Amino acid sequence: MRTQIAIIGAGPAGLLLSHLLHLQGIESVVLESRSRADIESTIRAGVLEQGTMDLLNETGVGERMRSLGALHHGIELAFDGARHRIDLTELTGKAITVYPQHEVIKDLVAARLAAQGQLLFEVSDVELHGVETSRPSVIFRHGGEACSLEADFVIGCDGYHGVARPAMPEQNLRKDFQRIYPFGWFGILVESVPSSDELIYAQHERGFALVSTRSPTVQRLYFQCDPSDRTDNWSDDRIWTELHARLENRDGWKLKEGRIFQKNIIGMRSFVSTPMQAGRLFLAGDAAHIVPPTGAKGMNLAVSDVWLLARGLEQFYRKGGEELLNSYTADALKRIWRAEYFSWTMTRLLHTFADATPFEREMQRAELENIVSSRALATSLAENYVGAF
Amino acid sequence: MRTQIAIIGAGPAGLLLSHLLHLQGIESVVLESRSRADIESTIRAGVLEQGTMDLLNETGVGERMRSLGALHHGIELAFDGARHRIDLTELTGKAITVYPQHEVIKDLVAARLAAQGQLLFEVSDVELHGVETSRPSVIFRHGGEACSLEADFVIGCDGYHGVARPAMPEQNLRKDFQRIYPFGWFGILVESVPSSDELIYAQHERGFALVSTRSPTVQRLYFQCDPSDRTDNWSDDRIWTELHARLENRDGWKLKEGRIFQKNIIGMRSFVSTPMQAGRLFLAGDAAHIVPPTGAKGMNLAVSDVWLLARGLEQFYRKGGEELLNSYTADALKRIWRAEYFSWTMTRLLHTFADATPFEREMQRAELENIVSSRALATSLAENYVGAF
Repeated sequence: MRTQIAIIGAGPAGLLLSHLLHLQGIESVVLESRSRADIESTIRAGVLEQGTMDLLNETGVGERMRSLGALHHGIELAFDGARHRIDLTELTGKAITVYPQHEVIKDLVAARLAAQGQLLFEVSDVELHGVETSRPSVIFRHGGEACSLEADFVIGCDGYHGVARPAMPEQNLRKDFQRIYPFGWFGILVESVPSSDELIYAQHERGFALVSTRSPTVQRLYFQCDPSDRTDNWSDDRIWTELHARLENRDGWKLKEGRIFQKNIIGMRSFVSTPMQAGRLFLAGDAAHIVPPTGAKGMNLAVSDVWLLARGLEQFYRKGGEELLNSYTADALKRIWRAEYFSWTMTRLLHTFADATPFEREMQRAELENIVSSRALATSLAENYVGAF
Repeated sequence: MRTQIAIIGAGPAGLLLSHLLHLQGIESVVLESRSRADIESTIRAGVLEQGTMDLLNETGVGERMRSLGALHHGIELAFDGARHRIDLTELTGKAITVYPQHEVIKDLVAARLAAQGQLLFEVSDVELHGVETSRPSVIFRHGGEACSLEADFVIGCDGYHGVARPAMPEQNLRKDFQRIYPFGWFGILVESVPSSDELIYAQHERGFALVSTRSPTVQRLYFQCDPSDRTDNWSDDRIWTELHARLENRDGWKLKEGRIFQKNIIGMRSFVSTPMQAGRLFLAGDAAHIVPPTGAKGMNLAVSDVWLLARGLEQFYRKGGEELLNSYTADALKRIWRAEYFSWTMTRLLHTFADATPFEREMQRAELENIVSSRALATSLAENYVGAF
């Protein structure tokens, strides 16, 4: 097999890149280790920045998002027994859409298949070869067969645990930046109507909690936990007791309960691996960087990475220049570091750190107070949240 | 001796309180352990917020400040080889005045003496008695004599190392918050004209540096150092080499040298002690809280403390109410925590932390980048710096 662009991974990054390239008349093949049913049903992130919404709309894959997604114009910060609204739209002129990542994936898979795009699911034993040369290739197994795909470029969109980053040449020259947080998020999926019109980010001495939503009938709730804890340790009753304690304040608002149909524990890390290009191999999305979910930036960063790559590949094929491809790492890192910074500040702001000194706890409270009493600081938070900055 | 208000300490807090009380017809005696010549010549802080300027002007002690002080409408942040101006006045409508603390002290001493105010210098062996009662007293030695001063209230304005805080009743109920930083500031006084029209706060891998001024002929320069270092280890040549390395960038700006006539090393701490009232004893200024000097908030916080106390004492004597006095701790702490937070963020933003991870160093750089590229964040910094928030 031969194509122009071999894309490893059919997450939002890989699928959107394939879609953007198709619109430019550039051919690609997407290789995915999981099944289509699996990637289309795994519930993950759900907040789309204005820029992500705009890109999906402009490229013709925004129709279901517009009808099924929920446009949010604000978020709530809860602490010290009170809730405070950050009016995203009033402060920035922009908004976010809450629309689950697996729905974005469904939309992109449908668009690629409708355009006769090549998506290979359930591939295994993926290996990259010759990425230092101008004729890289990918070998893999698919449907019981050993396959080989030759390409001009290989793009690793296969996540933190994927094969692309370890296959980057000159591993000894790579520079990684990382922080692993001493807590995780316990996430549940609940059958119920939403408890709140907007997302609630709650700081509480018992730990952070987040009220989010996936659809009018499925709610996504999280609470800070020990990352080494096990979901077995948490009965439904214990989960509800903990969520009520962290979320319900003196204002009388009540969290709605419902049937819990999924429980999982998510580790929290900040991670950036550079460079994002080596020879003809590029990394995009979680393959190159991870943010803790507190800032809702993960999927949006993947989108901005592949937007840059699509522009660079368009330049390469249309005009023969490699300037944009060669500046990909530098260009992408500007936005990545900004998002890493925002995600880190939101994480630090809202979580309980067991080893914090009394002075540090007061600094956390002072920062929360400042955000809800200073229009300038609230504007900065809102700009980062909607991705306007 | 008998007075209404016994004030321990003739720094900006004690002297300004005595002045404000006098304007309300309330009598006070100020006890100071040092000599008048000493307090009027020790060079310390030098940045007055808009609110401090306004208060000095409104109460008739702003004339020399207006003629000798330098009104500044901006500050500069230097990092990564470039300088970035934060336009305080454009962002907030307000400004700061660079006017040395010992000049404020001269103005206040002159005003108190002109009004026959009682200032006792070089007192020693100060002890507080009966502060839980309505007739507290201060005993001390002055001019070789044992003296006793009875008062309605005692106000401790005697700094971090003073006698007032340890004399607060119920020490076991006190709550202190503290962070001691792993670095200090090496400060020098230089005979030269200013190198810059505005203060320059420089972040550099070798450590923080600050270009400040005290007058058209005396400049105040600082650089981050080991707090246990000794001034003897730093020849003039070594100091200039270090300052040039940290401050001079690719823009061609040069630091002006001159005769160094004073060197000192300042420790850096954040500290808040609560409550600030117990019985008839109140604490104000450094006696109750310390900020690292990075945010230029120390003297300004002392001023806001005594402004609150003057209002409370006015209420007590004019109307017989104690509401404002009883809410003094809570009212003062609002502004104190805000200033502690700002001073901590500026300190963290600008200094080199030897134990920072590569990820944390990138977060520091991302915060600096964000401040100079986001109007909202720059506005927040400016509001805190001028005290508008």
